[in-house]
Amino acid sequence: MICNLTISADGYSAGLNQTEERPFGDDGGDGWADKLHAWYSESSEENREEIDQILAAKAFIMGRNMFGPVRGEWDRPWIGWWGDNPPYHAPVFVLTHHAREPQPMEGGTTFHFVTDGIESALTRAREAAGDGDVAIMGGATTINQYLAAGLIDELRLHIVPLTLGAGTRLFEGVPPLKLEQVKSHSASLVTHVTYRVLS
Amino acid sequence: MICNLTISADGYSAGLNQTEERPFGDDGGDGWADKLHAWYSESSEENREEIDQILAAKAFIMGRNMFGPVRGEWDRPWIGWWGDNPPYHAPVFVLTHHAREPQPMEGGTTFHFVTDGIESALTRAREAAGDGDVAIMGGATTINQYLAAGLIDELRLHIVPLTLGAGTRLFEGVPPLKLEQVKSHSASLVTHVTYRVLS
Repeated sequence: MICNLTISADGYSAGLNQTEERPFGDDGGDGWADKLHAWYSESSEENREEIDQILAAKAFIMGRNMFGPVRGEWDRPWIGWWGDNPPYHAPVFVLTHHAREPQPMEGGTTFHFVTDGIESALTRAREAAGDGDVAIMGGATTINQYLAAGLIDELRLHIVPLTLGAGTRLFEGVPPLKLEQVKSHSASLVTHVTYRVLS
Repeated sequence: MICNLTISADGYSAGLNQTEERPFGDDGGDGWADKLHAWYSESSEENREEIDQILAAKAFIMGRNMFGPVRGEWDRPWIGWWGDNPPYHAPVFVLTHHAREPQPMEGGTTFHFVTDGIESALTRAREAAGDGDVAIMGGATTINQYLAAGLIDELRLHIVPLTLGAGTRLFEGVPPLKLEQVKSHSASLVTHVTYRVLS
């Protein structure tokens, strides 16, 4: 299974203290959240291949914190950070401890809420994807769980030039991994590195 | 000031429990210490520019653990990991809490032992380098001290495809940094990324 994650140079996918106003948490007050994903939204063709690869998946998995800032029970309306027409255009399986009815969106995206663990989410995503790829989108906590379970084949990292110093860190708590560097592509705002996970 | 560091994909420059037999500490028992520095010693021309850049400096600074496995007092002979003729061919200032006479080596390298802190080591290295560059070689603990003190202008990272899971980690405890990605070069065994430290 493929996993994509944008990380800081020190390996964080988000800072501490995520809120609705700051989806990526504390950022030193300097617009780092924007910078963290600038490569993805910028209009140049430089990162087109990586963006297309991400969106080519036919089903997606994400952690609850990537989906939104609500914690505990779903005590207020929340349909994700991406507006009425999210960029996925496919089923998105959101890992959570709190059950919720599927949330259909415009453009073919439906958010499904999975309460029985990462294997179950993967099984459902694979069924939904058919012959297509399943992509795990993050955050780091979710990816770390899949890595520790040996369920990720390919890790596509997008490393942006900043450090966060604290937050949710990729590989934290994951036993040592053998990787093979499959591809690496330097763009101006980001370095893309694709690893195959060997064990 | 320039700093070079080879790190794992999860940001470690060495595993836990360094010994004379395992200069890079615990490595999962799988020869990762070798892999960590394979890019540097391999004979292809692929990484020639990065290697030449490292060795072009006219004075070097390193932490005591990069110099050797001896802890506390210098209670046994130790002249570094590099044999009689180390690759530096210039003064190397080793940070330590334990005074020791300078150790001249073949080929122009002399190890100087600095007991009064990172600024003092930098001052002495700059004097020794004259018009040349000073390069901080690591480990991560030493580089983190210089980064936290705002004394590093350029960070050259050499990211190898493996994770260590624990050990001495670059950026740990360092407040958030603004970086500019100056250069990035993908080789087969490693991805080189050069950052300018903006603040």
